[in-house]
Amino acid sequence: MSQVKTIEWKDGAIVLPDQTLLPERLEMLRCEKIQQIWEAIKMLRVRGAPALGVAAAYAVVLGLKEFAGSAREEFDRQMNQVCDYIATSRPTAVNLFWALERMKRFRQTLAEQPTQLVWEALLEEARRIHQEDEQTCQAIGDHGQTLLPNPATVITHCNAGALATAGIGTALGVIYAAQQVGKKVRVYSDETRPLLQGARLTAWELIQNGVEVITICDNMAAVVLKTKSVDCVIVGADRIAANGDTANKIGTYGLSILAKHHGAPFYVAAPLSTIDRSLSNGAQIPIEERDPDEIRRGFGRLTAPPNVQVFNPAFDVTPAENVSAIITEKGILRAPYERSIAEAFKGRE
Amino acid sequence: MSQVKTIEWKDGAIVLPDQTLLPERLEMLRCEKIQQIWEAIKMLRVRGAPALGVAAAYAVVLGLKEFAGSAREEFDRQMNQVCDYIATSRPTAVNLFWALERMKRFRQTLAEQPTQLVWEALLEEARRIHQEDEQTCQAIGDHGQTLLPNPATVITHCNAGALATAGIGTALGVIYAAQQVGKKVRVYSDETRPLLQGARLTAWELIQNGVEVITICDNMAAVVLKTKSVDCVIVGADRIAANGDTANKIGTYGLSILAKHHGAPFYVAAPLSTIDRSLSNGAQIPIEERDPDEIRRGFGRLTAPPNVQVFNPAFDVTPAENVSAIITEKGILRAPYERSIAEAFKGRE
Repeated sequence: MSQVKTIEWKDGAIVLPDQTLLPERLEMLRCEKIQQIWEAIKMLRVRGAPALGVAAAYAVVLGLKEFAGSAREEFDRQMNQVCDYIATSRPTAVNLFWALERMKRFRQTLAEQPTQLVWEALLEEARRIHQEDEQTCQAIGDHGQTLLPNPATVITHCNAGALATAGIGTALGVIYAAQQVGKKVRVYSDETRPLLQGARLTAWELIQNGVEVITICDNMAAVVLKTKSVDCVIVGADRIAANGDTANKIGTYGLSILAKHHGAPFYVAAPLSTIDRSLSNGAQIPIEERDPDEIRRGFGRLTAPPNVQVFNPAFDVTPAENVSAIITEKGILRAPYERSIAEAFKGRE
Repeated sequence: MSQVKTIEWKDGAIVLPDQTLLPERLEMLRCEKIQQIWEAIKMLRVRGAPALGVAAAYAVVLGLKEFAGSAREEFDRQMNQVCDYIATSRPTAVNLFWALERMKRFRQTLAEQPTQLVWEALLEEARRIHQEDEQTCQAIGDHGQTLLPNPATVITHCNAGALATAGIGTALGVIYAAQQVGKKVRVYSDETRPLLQGARLTAWELIQNGVEVITICDNMAAVVLKTKSVDCVIVGADRIAANGDTANKIGTYGLSILAKHHGAPFYVAAPLSTIDRSLSNGAQIPIEERDPDEIRRGFGRLTAPPNVQVFNPAFDVTPAENVSAIITEKGILRAPYERSIAEAFKGRE
């Protein structure tokens, strides 16, 4: 895998490549203040559901750094504030909330310890979340690659790769794991408007890692499905409901319909931490709407009338019936997902 | 309708707004040489199947201007060269070839006349093509608007509007004609990657003409179809085969599948000159592939790795089975299209 770490705790700060600048340049951003990591999440300098979990965990550590050694009440008040603040950054990816909850629960286990020690333990917990994500990605990849023939042609959407996680990625993790066992994979990468994570990030990291990638506009996927012998579509997820309905980057829903129409399996690759069992179905998943100017002037140029109305949902929900399988670190889940998801969580709580 | 003419013969030259600069600025381009109009067609400064027919007709006049008064053999040799040259500009829209053929056939009717008179008559014929296109657009609109409820919500793709024709447009002609009879239409306009004709041109001209327009990325159409009570999808066409298979801007095929999936009628609006009865089906329509840098650096910025492979077809083919009706100047054609198309052409040859 390429040498750039998607996110890292280093010398008391969170360090990450500013993904909004890729592929034009690779520039590391050092977040020393909680406001900086909040802004980095909000502006998608770091993005991808699993990476957002890791970022949120480190953000808690960062926000408490100056309070290590404070009185317990002050430390805990600050911890609640930091968690509430980070929770306002982006609404859809559940991993962010999952990581905040895990950090809070973990803090409770430390009860009366001095806050300096609590802070150090929280840093260790964040590092554990980070490391687990690495292992989880590899496990997702190992399970998922069994679904790919050799050679394989795959369509993916957005970036569910190393840049979206602390490891080899989820959807792209499947592809890298296939490569690890000697399979040859050709990837058609939707550019993924408006922010072009597919063109900017997926293409960039696949090239870095020696995987054949062909960039297409989102509206070309139908023709690719029809004419390029596509074996399957693989995407990541931002939040999965208990019934398997999957929120992911805008465009995923349409792609799932096109895949079904052309008889190509449609796989979602995600860690269990992306599954929100508190929601019975996808209609309950909050969908972020973003700045109209992402569409009107996304590239430093005016690409639409400055006053035109815009509809800019960042995600959509793919109904479980369009999902051929959910690839997790615990194995490949199949419909009915209520049951297979519940099974996968057994022994975890 | 807005005051800017999409194309015009003026003082011995072809004058047109450079559509690649819209909506940032409205700048008129004056083509005095045949190479300039060829380049304008190639680079999409003028585009849209019907407008390309008009442009090709005027291009013939422009290319022969210096030969008005020459010997007949020289004039005719030049005419063949000009037609062959213009035919190399863009391969998919049949109107371009249709107009060249019509100009050639018309020239034959003038036989032995002095070439000065022939040239003047060719100019008149080009103006007739221009004027007929205006009337055709209005007729398409008048027929098509009967398909719209009041109020109506419509999705369109690319630009099949006034900017794509010499009149009120084809797909957008239907919307303008609905407006003329007092219907209220809301239009969701796919931005239409890679060249953003939807965001740049459709949104611009609909705003100019007081129609409510909401710009979306192409990958949002599925969610709009699912959640915004869309009455129908209306698109233009670049070439329609005898069986109704329709080549149109890339993304149209996928949109037709999404429309069908959501139960929304999918209409193609086009003049009969867009129908190529020499082709029995859409597989025979030549599909232009364009410069990869349209996708890699479309907005003056690098939006994908500079060396990434790209697949960039400019058009796709929507099978007739996905087309609910073809709206022409002769009325609304329904499946089976072999028959309804043949009917519509009766009495024309």
